[in-house]
Amino acid sequence: MQAVVFRDPETRAEVTDVTLAAPRAGEVRVKIAAAGVCHSDLHVKRGEWDAPAPMVMGHEGAGTVVELGEGVTSLAVGDHVVLSWVPPCGECRYCLQGHEARCQKVVEVNNAHGSLFDGTSRLSRTDDGEPLRHYLSVSSFAEEVVVPVSGAIKVRDDAPLDVIAVVGCAVATGVGAVLNTAGVEPGATVAVIGCGGVGLNVVQGAKLAGAERIIAIDIVPEKTAMALQFGATDRIDASERDAVEQLFDLIPDGADYVFDAIGRTSTTEQAIRMLGLGGAAVIVGLPPTGARASFEPLVLAEADQRILGSNYGSVRPSIDIPALVDRYMDGQLKLDPLISGRRPLAEAAEALDDLETGGVLRTLLIP
Amino acid sequence: MQAVVFRDPETRAEVTDVTLAAPRAGEVRVKIAAAGVCHSDLHVKRGEWDAPAPMVMGHEGAGTVVELGEGVTSLAVGDHVVLSWVPPCGECRYCLQGHEARCQKVVEVNNAHGSLFDGTSRLSRTDDGEPLRHYLSVSSFAEEVVVPVSGAIKVRDDAPLDVIAVVGCAVATGVGAVLNTAGVEPGATVAVIGCGGVGLNVVQGAKLAGAERIIAIDIVPEKTAMALQFGATDRIDASERDAVEQLFDLIPDGADYVFDAIGRTSTTEQAIRMLGLGGAAVIVGLPPTGARASFEPLVLAEADQRILGSNYGSVRPSIDIPALVDRYMDGQLKLDPLISGRRPLAEAAEALDDLETGGVLRTLLIP
Repeated sequence: MQAVVFRDPETRAEVTDVTLAAPRAGEVRVKIAAAGVCHSDLHVKRGEWDAPAPMVMGHEGAGTVVELGEGVTSLAVGDHVVLSWVPPCGECRYCLQGHEARCQKVVEVNNAHGSLFDGTSRLSRTDDGEPLRHYLSVSSFAEEVVVPVSGAIKVRDDAPLDVIAVVGCAVATGVGAVLNTAGVEPGATVAVIGCGGVGLNVVQGAKLAGAERIIAIDIVPEKTAMALQFGATDRIDASERDAVEQLFDLIPDGADYVFDAIGRTSTTEQAIRMLGLGGAAVIVGLPPTGARASFEPLVLAEADQRILGSNYGSVRPSIDIPALVDRYMDGQLKLDPLISGRRPLAEAAEALDDLETGGVLRTLLIP
Repeated sequence: MQAVVFRDPETRAEVTDVTLAAPRAGEVRVKIAAAGVCHSDLHVKRGEWDAPAPMVMGHEGAGTVVELGEGVTSLAVGDHVVLSWVPPCGECRYCLQGHEARCQKVVEVNNAHGSLFDGTSRLSRTDDGEPLRHYLSVSSFAEEVVVPVSGAIKVRDDAPLDVIAVVGCAVATGVGAVLNTAGVEPGATVAVIGCGGVGLNVVQGAKLAGAERIIAIDIVPEKTAMALQFGATDRIDASERDAVEQLFDLIPDGADYVFDAIGRTSTTEQAIRMLGLGGAAVIVGLPPTGARASFEPLVLAEADQRILGSNYGSVRPSIDIPALVDRYMDGQLKLDPLISGRRPLAEAAEALDDLETGGVLRTLLIP
């Protein structure tokens, strides 16, 4: 099959022939209908994050189950699935506490080694047999994937796979940060720094949560204009003057929740400074490895404030992903405007270039 | 009456004659039985925190109601009360949400101006009539205080006032940080950096919460030895080698909760580095104004971790303070070993010097 291989930041992502071994016990093979190109893929491509290589890229996608590994009974061939880049093991103390997004086995085995749960890979180059690693248990920039069964989340058949692919990462991360990590209450004031793919999902998550004020912040006015369509009530043009000052002009008490959907040191520190009494800054956008942000512990303590890291929107994939698909089908969540375009798999490198240039939200690769 | 007046860091705290005006509507006058000397008083004395001056010091104490202001019906003369340095207004959005420790009126009126709720003071120097401010709505280093009725918390009559005085700050702050701010679950792993007055209360709060491991960390072995008596299961001598390394030797997955009861930049950063997946660092000890601590947003997000400021243990005074007194009387909370000694009010300056020298936990001033 064709797949997109990442080797190192110096080498352009390459579409090549890859051999996919059959699913082992507890795994399934999925034919990919669409795979989303995410900013995280760009971080990997630039070498800003540690990622096991060489590997098949991609961690967002949806498709149809085509083969079941030994012992798999919870899925059937033909099922429509959205891929989750945390396939919870269900056995570690974090899974047992209901914090599946923190699954320890996923972190320590799959992500550390670029493997599936048994520590091995199903991927290799067809021409020379070179072993390839899995990226975040998914590797969706390919015609097919083999994933742990807990990473293939069954969803309703009538939802279009080449739309709901984005639920697996962008939507789960953004909406989950609001509903799960932060637990935004009705009537709360919310600010969102960065109105790209994840930020717009934070905005619509805040709307679902019943927030009273949703303040969209970006340096690109077109992005905050789009945020208004997703439910924002106010916008701040951060290119004009200090966004923190502008926020306090709008809500003098400061915000109850500020989401940093950019993940630069400067935006994280702005998010913290925007908080009111008891406010929470939620880190959704991810900075490069080693970047540090600072805060005043005295202020954080005296104002009873919080800084919350949000990994994958603290989602419980098997519960939250089908619910998000239902909300799309019910008209409560917008997905179509998040998708900037669709390209064939062979144009993966161009799709990554587009993302680097800016101006696109989500490009879907169609194998 | 006699009271301890703070003017500026250059001038030693002075015991002098102070005139206390009668309580106005919604206020009560309380005869102080004992007032605790806290590290926060030391921060004020050193000029490390902004505090309105000149003022009567002290924010922890207990006593007996001796006079009711107009309209006060919830207390009676003779009632035993513990003073709360957050007298919730009951009307701001934070109080109405149940987050009384965040009361906005207390922050914006009382603490900002060193006043009671109407923006004025009941305190003045007897000799020249100079107006004096209230410290944190309490000013307990005095024979008597006038406080808002919501800051005088009725407790059972059989609890010794010259012991339960410490519930009002040290105990509420430490135990509250565990039970309210962090919400430590049974079975959790907890580390506590700093085993002074607040740290020991974090330790016994963690024991009440049912934590499985409670790791006491300090550079003074006598303090961690005392923590074992308060419920710690393990101790780390941070003077030996890096406390973070030692913690991971004890619990390789990192801690679920780490409480910084010191409040130096270095200890706050250590607390964050000690966290495991989903862990929370809780800032209880307070650093000087302007001190900054840093963290890696990528790590915080990927590991779904949190940094929580804890103001006054996120307590609801009228609910939590009587409950803490009950737990002392039931033998579930240790208070007596927290009290290093008792001194007459006239020795307030010496009590502050003792605290600076170290080796004492809580000195109670007895008017």
